Amino acid sequence: MVLRRFSSVTRPVSLTVEKFPGYNRNHRFKKLTDDDVSYFESIVGKRGYICNVDELSPYNIDWMNKFRGQSPLVLLPRNTQQISDILQYCNEQKLAVVPQGGNTSLAGGSVPIFDEIILSMRHMNRIRSFDNVSGILTADAGCILEVLDNWLAEKGYMMPLDLAAKGSCQIGGNIATNAGGLRLLRYGSLHGSVLGLEVVLPNGTVLNNMSTLRKDNTGFDLKQLFIGSEGTIGIITGVSILTPLRSKAVNVAMLGLNSFEDVQDAFKHARLELSEILSAFEFWDNQSFQIYKKHFPYKDIMTKDYPFYILIETSGSNKRHDDEKLTDYLGQMMNNGIAQDGVVAQDQKQIKDLWDVRDGLTGALGKEPAVYKYDISIPVANIWHCAQDMRHHLCMGGVFGEKDSPVTDVVAYGHIGDGNVHLNIVTKDLDTRVSDLIEPYLFEWVAKHQGSISAEHGLGVAKNEFLGYSKTPEMIELMKTLKNILDPNGILNPYKYLPQT
Amino acid sequence: MVLRRFSSVTRPVSLTVEKFPGYNRNHRFKKLTDDDVSYFESIVGKRGYICNVDELSPYNIDWMNKFRGQSPLVLLPRNTQQISDILQYCNEQKLAVVPQGGNTSLAGGSVPIFDEIILSMRHMNRIRSFDNVSGILTADAGCILEVLDNWLAEKGYMMPLDLAAKGSCQIGGNIATNAGGLRLLRYGSLHGSVLGLEVVLPNGTVLNNMSTLRKDNTGFDLKQLFIGSEGTIGIITGVSILTPLRSKAVNVAMLGLNSFEDVQDAFKHARLELSEILSAFEFWDNQSFQIYKKHFPYKDIMTKDYPFYILIETSGSNKRHDDEKLTDYLGQMMNNGIAQDGVVAQDQKQIKDLWDVRDGLTGALGKEPAVYKYDISIPVANIWHCAQDMRHHLCMGGVFGEKDSPVTDVVAYGHIGDGNVHLNIVTKDLDTRVSDLIEPYLFEWVAKHQGSISAEHGLGVAKNEFLGYSKTPEMIELMKTLKNILDPNGILNPYKYLPQT
Repeated sequence: MVLRRFSSVTRPVSLTVEKFPGYNRNHRFKKLTDDDVSYFESIVGKRGYICNVDELSPYNIDWMNKFRGQSPLVLLPRNTQQISDILQYCNEQKLAVVPQGGNTSLAGGSVPIFDEIILSMRHMNRIRSFDNVSGILTADAGCILEVLDNWLAEKGYMMPLDLAAKGSCQIGGNIATNAGGLRLLRYGSLHGSVLGLEVVLPNGTVLNNMSTLRKDNTGFDLKQLFIGSEGTIGIITGVSILTPLRSKAVNVAMLGLNSFEDVQDAFKHARLELSEILSAFEFWDNQSFQIYKKHFPYKDIMTKDYPFYILIETSGSNKRHDDEKLTDYLGQMMNNGIAQDGVVAQDQKQIKDLWDVRDGLTGALGKEPAVYKYDISIPVANIWHCAQDMRHHLCMGGVFGEKDSPVTDVVAYGHIGDGNVHLNIVTKDLDTRVSDLIEPYLFEWVAKHQGSISAEHGLGVAKNEFLGYSKTPEMIELMKTLKNILDPNGILNPYKYLPQT
Repeated sequence: MVLRRFSSVTRPVSLTVEKFPGYNRNHRFKKLTDDDVSYFESIVGKRGYICNVDELSPYNIDWMNKFRGQSPLVLLPRNTQQISDILQYCNEQKLAVVPQGGNTSLAGGSVPIFDEIILSMRHMNRIRSFDNVSGILTADAGCILEVLDNWLAEKGYMMPLDLAAKGSCQIGGNIATNAGGLRLLRYGSLHGSVLGLEVVLPNGTVLNNMSTLRKDNTGFDLKQLFIGSEGTIGIITGVSILTPLRSKAVNVAMLGLNSFEDVQDAFKHARLELSEILSAFEFWDNQSFQIYKKHFPYKDIMTKDYPFYILIETSGSNKRHDDEKLTDYLGQMMNNGIAQDGVVAQDQKQIKDLWDVRDGLTGALGKEPAVYKYDISIPVANIWHCAQDMRHHLCMGGVFGEKDSPVTDVVAYGHIGDGNVHLNIVTKDLDTRVSDLIEPYLFEWVAKHQGSISAEHGLGVAKNEFLGYSKTPEMIELMKTLKNILDPNGILNPYKYLPQT
């Protein structure tokens, strides 16, 4: 299941400024003129920009149809120098800019709010180099994740990250948002696997740090600042990344379980028994599964429903050894009653079928009338309490549990191994009665449990004002200082990420 | 082999300012007064500081006896608040400060140059918390690496890094210098495994980012700036780190090889065949080995000398599977002539014996009269060219190859998997004829081969002026900007790290 870039828009998407009142256009930003457009044309050429209203629409709307900006211009530069020239001009002219990768953000970070110029990276899509001994890849930031992964597959390597949006999302956007995804458990975060970046700063300066070394202790590791900066202090144009060898043997199993305690037990055993070959441990609840089955064709993988499901993937170098480890593990899970039912994929097709379920959960929810999406990190034991508490809280608030309640479901799924749960409140329509009950209640709950209000989706539009629930005033102050130094005119991805007050 | 903190000083160590002329004390820094000492006593108590000349000596001299500062005062705070109070006062009074962990730096970063106050972290040594499900450890920055590793061993976990200085070095110092070491190949860099930090900024502000979450995308990842900052923008006081499960099965083998091409071939095969269980792949040349054998008791592990040696470690969850993989691999290496001889450790004692050789190389070199040490990253294929070129260059320069030449040896060892080689030029004494031949020749060589002049040892005193060989002017400019913002008075670890001009 690949999330396509342009989802079908079944009803008009209202403007972000209408949906989230309180935003005011920064009057210091210049409004785009014909002269500006002519100047940009001199940089990117006649075919390097879009200003036709119909064609602009997919760039102004996010793929969840939740956020809609009003940009009159999309620029499609083809190289780093063009991006440098564009930003230098925008900085001088005080024209605000939103960098856009695959536009698969779940937090509204990739679309404008007002009339910011959209700088699309889709034409920056060359693979630059690959070292077949070390596995180090360098590429333009606009390369699509799945394209890179397929390209590496032929060489026996793979990208160290994988996520449902892989068919559309770009590696530059992945890094700008510090994407987590399905392989983090095994291959770690991008802060470890990204070896170098090429970044254009808001004033047009090109910061060339395209190192292809695993170790380099020469000064502050500046590239780290841009990993997860959501396009607010620079535009990532080039990437150097360490890619792991593709495993010769991959196994995938799906289990049905009766309780979240069983899910945790299954995880603890997996870490011990599958250890170095464990490459994914995902869970979803039955509520998520029902929504998946409602929207996507589904061949019954299990004959019966269970309250919880887990998907386990192993990746190793010796099929016989891995089969033996997995068989032992699954035997234990069934014999001691931790798992109630289970299937193991027998071929590539079945592996894909099982992954399609997990990958498709987000897409299925996207087909519901409206969804409030949250992406939080908390110690594993509290993951399920969070969903249970939210259900109870919404019931008590009178918006869930009755036939005519606005909330139709509260569903949870995510990455157990990373303590990361995606909590989705499904509603018949966007409704302030519901959103006022969720926020800041959920953020307070997360802060009380030492969690993060954004595990991997980022802050974007919706969460920046709540940053104080996860970061101290001293840290927010230092973040603002850094933003002001690197982007004194505030032209890059304005109104987002950091609190505006 | 554990490198003890206080190495025996067999001859007087000359002052850094005498050895590296060109440093001038910054006249803006205040000279310490009795009133200052009284004030510090009010913070740390009577037993919380040292100003006796004899006792100061081991804090003023680095463990290689290469650098010697002139600090009149060592402070030994016991908690974060004391460090905050100290720095606030120092910042107001413009008193310069050198943070010191285990003082095992190889670049002179941990000792003062002039009269900077030494702030020793040795009394900050409490373990704060450990989560037995996630493996997340929080601890004071002054905890010794080996102490933490042994403590975790009892819980079935291990530290994600290991280095020869483990018996003395502290986790805070490891992070401040972004230590690499022996486990990086498997467990990645500290930029990935460090989850949170508590840092005291130069003005005394405590930056509390002690997250215990694997994923947290809420704002700039500020902690990354302090990883590898060598104590120049803040003092790390607390650490949250992800620790891997200790493997149930560990195997270690040592092989003798005829050429560096064979070393590379052995590595390529190890990545493919040992793959997910490969946890270390180290190499050293015969020259290093002879120096080791000269200084340390050695039971003949192999009956004969070879030009190169590799040490391979595997760590996995199933002893039988791992033995089979390793046996297959070693069989291949012997049968196709890549390895000439080899031994596999049969028990814990033998594992330690083999590791002692690799761990002891640095210590053995420390017993030579004088050593010029370099720690560079380059693509693996060039590692050996680098040592060969240096030998040739020193011969041509007339300082190596004859009986009375000042240079007695050029030796290389390091982490093949990370493209990281430790190049050591052994001399009868420090000699400007030699050092002028080495620098900037070596740095130019490294820059030409897209390498880094400091892979894992850091910049410290010796290398800061050569930063331009590994980083662009734009990057150095931004580094200086960050330093100025965070430490406007420049009190933290002055004269080091960044170019002073």
